[in-house]
Amino acid sequence: MQGAVRNRQVILRAHPHGQPRESDFDCVASPLRSLELGEFLLRNRYLSLDAGFRQWMNEGSGDGYLPAMQLGQPVMGLVLGEVVESRHPDYSIGDVVMCRSRWEELTIADGADYVSVIQPDPEVPLSCYLGILGPTGLTAYFGLRDIGKVRRGETVLISAAAGAVGSVAAQLARIQGGRVVGMTSSGEKCRWLRDALGVDAAIDYRAAGGLDAALREHCPGGVDVYFDNVGGEILDTVMAHLRERARVVLCGAVSTYGATAPVPGPRNMFKLITQRATMAGFMVTDYVGEYPQAIEQMTAWLKSGQLANAEDVVLGIENTAAAFCRMFASGNRGKSVVRLQEPA
Amino acid sequence: MQGAVRNRQVILRAHPHGQPRESDFDCVASPLRSLELGEFLLRNRYLSLDAGFRQWMNEGSGDGYLPAMQLGQPVMGLVLGEVVESRHPDYSIGDVVMCRSRWEELTIADGADYVSVIQPDPEVPLSCYLGILGPTGLTAYFGLRDIGKVRRGETVLISAAAGAVGSVAAQLARIQGGRVVGMTSSGEKCRWLRDALGVDAAIDYRAAGGLDAALREHCPGGVDVYFDNVGGEILDTVMAHLRERARVVLCGAVSTYGATAPVPGPRNMFKLITQRATMAGFMVTDYVGEYPQAIEQMTAWLKSGQLANAEDVVLGIENTAAAFCRMFASGNRGKSVVRLQEPA
Repeated sequence: MQGAVRNRQVILRAHPHGQPRESDFDCVASPLRSLELGEFLLRNRYLSLDAGFRQWMNEGSGDGYLPAMQLGQPVMGLVLGEVVESRHPDYSIGDVVMCRSRWEELTIADGADYVSVIQPDPEVPLSCYLGILGPTGLTAYFGLRDIGKVRRGETVLISAAAGAVGSVAAQLARIQGGRVVGMTSSGEKCRWLRDALGVDAAIDYRAAGGLDAALREHCPGGVDVYFDNVGGEILDTVMAHLRERARVVLCGAVSTYGATAPVPGPRNMFKLITQRATMAGFMVTDYVGEYPQAIEQMTAWLKSGQLANAEDVVLGIENTAAAFCRMFASGNRGKSVVRLQEPA
Repeated sequence: MQGAVRNRQVILRAHPHGQPRESDFDCVASPLRSLELGEFLLRNRYLSLDAGFRQWMNEGSGDGYLPAMQLGQPVMGLVLGEVVESRHPDYSIGDVVMCRSRWEELTIADGADYVSVIQPDPEVPLSCYLGILGPTGLTAYFGLRDIGKVRRGETVLISAAAGAVGSVAAQLARIQGGRVVGMTSSGEKCRWLRDALGVDAAIDYRAAGGLDAALREHCPGGVDVYFDNVGGEILDTVMAHLRERARVVLCGAVSTYGATAPVPGPRNMFKLITQRATMAGFMVTDYVGEYPQAIEQMTAWLKSGQLANAEDVVLGIENTAAAFCRMFASGNRGKSVVRLQEPA
């Protein structure tokens, strides 16, 4: 497959300033090198678009968790592919593998990075393994399980509820017996949250009257669990509505990823003290050992119809940058993935 | 004792603007009324000065936890007194009682508020029961036990380490095997932290080079447990130094109590996510049922010399306001209490 084979990749052309723009990226093709011993080749079927990765597109933004992305290099991202060639004993041709690599059609991997072999269920779309059954859905699953700890009847508030993680968290909180209130950025997406995801109430951040009034209306007894995907000012406003012993699941801080100046954090920290509240962050990658059981449970819910697979699929690597930028303009619903075509 | 008896009280004359000033308070005497059925009379021996109560001195600052203090009314505070008269079946003459009442020489109480009867150990100064063996010390004890969860060898950073709670937290963290780094506001108090409290390192917030550099120097591997008494910008700076799975014990936010504008919260919230860190608040009053065992343990450490009783005692109710204001000017070391004289 090597030699004449050309691999199309999305390159970081400029560090985004504020929200990413299409011109920050380029789609280029280059010849694929041969495999070394200990490597395997993936033909990628799907690329995952994750708002969180915006964080590492800033200049010098490596933080010990992941390195900063470099100009001129392929954009770091999760892919789902099939092994088409292998010089690695643990990966065989035909294996379906998810790994953190790059936005590209073909990936040469050595198994050292975050990699998992998937056993796809034939009744479930393959793209689910990057979304609701992948890190996105598992983030919602473990964050709610270990930090949110929803009890029946509790009020669970979710920001970016129409987003990739939020749309799963909203549904899982509902399955766990919570009264679910989703926040999103348009009246139209509010309707979608109610109709497609079954939330009990939906709030448009930008609604007339302000978020504070909307929270008083829709969470009159306060918030028991806040699953936060956005951080910033919205987190601040929500903190004033926390009930006693509330849990804040810090999952993402999309409001800060594209910020051109430091985003002030919550001013209401004192509220955490008087309400005996807990705020905790987590990384889904710590739970790799528990993925199989969680995927099994979520697959059962998907098949029974208790969970809906909300995804936003675009076709072709050349449309990756546009789809990524659209996420920051609140254009997506559910998980955004790019479906790749057979490489030339 | 009633009738001719006059009770001196400290009255809130003005809502403090920023840091409290002596002119915000007045010391006045008024005749004591008779006890009703179900009440008892305390002759107070000590008043407790607590920075946290500053919070409720602002106009309309009631927050569901405690009511806002009213102008012209006695300042709310904790007292330690002896029952000298009782029309309440549960409180007998001679009982030593700590309760939340007012800064005053004589307190009429009905047992409804936060009240506990103390069994003073004759080998321990009575004032300890408002300080190291009172809510102050118990705050350090339960905050470290249930949120901090110090493991041997971990780095424990404490803000306002020369203060009432911080001075106990620093010592307890040391007893628990932590490597203790205390922060305070002068080089002279740094020396006191090392010499009197036995911390491993001390940092002056205002040291040349800045706090960030000092944290890099004294917590080179990062911070496992941050016991925070101050909030605000210092919390923000510390968050950049949290280690993986760090715990932030939110105990107080003295930087916000006297703020004339909202204090921005930590900008580094994203750090909580990538470091899988937890930040939690708590209120010592939730642990009332566990006070006796905790006091017993702490008393043993006091008697064995493992814990030092750091306190700053002023004499006479007329000096209460000045001593309270001095706490906000970083003038105190350890717990500040007012020792009351026999009422006239």
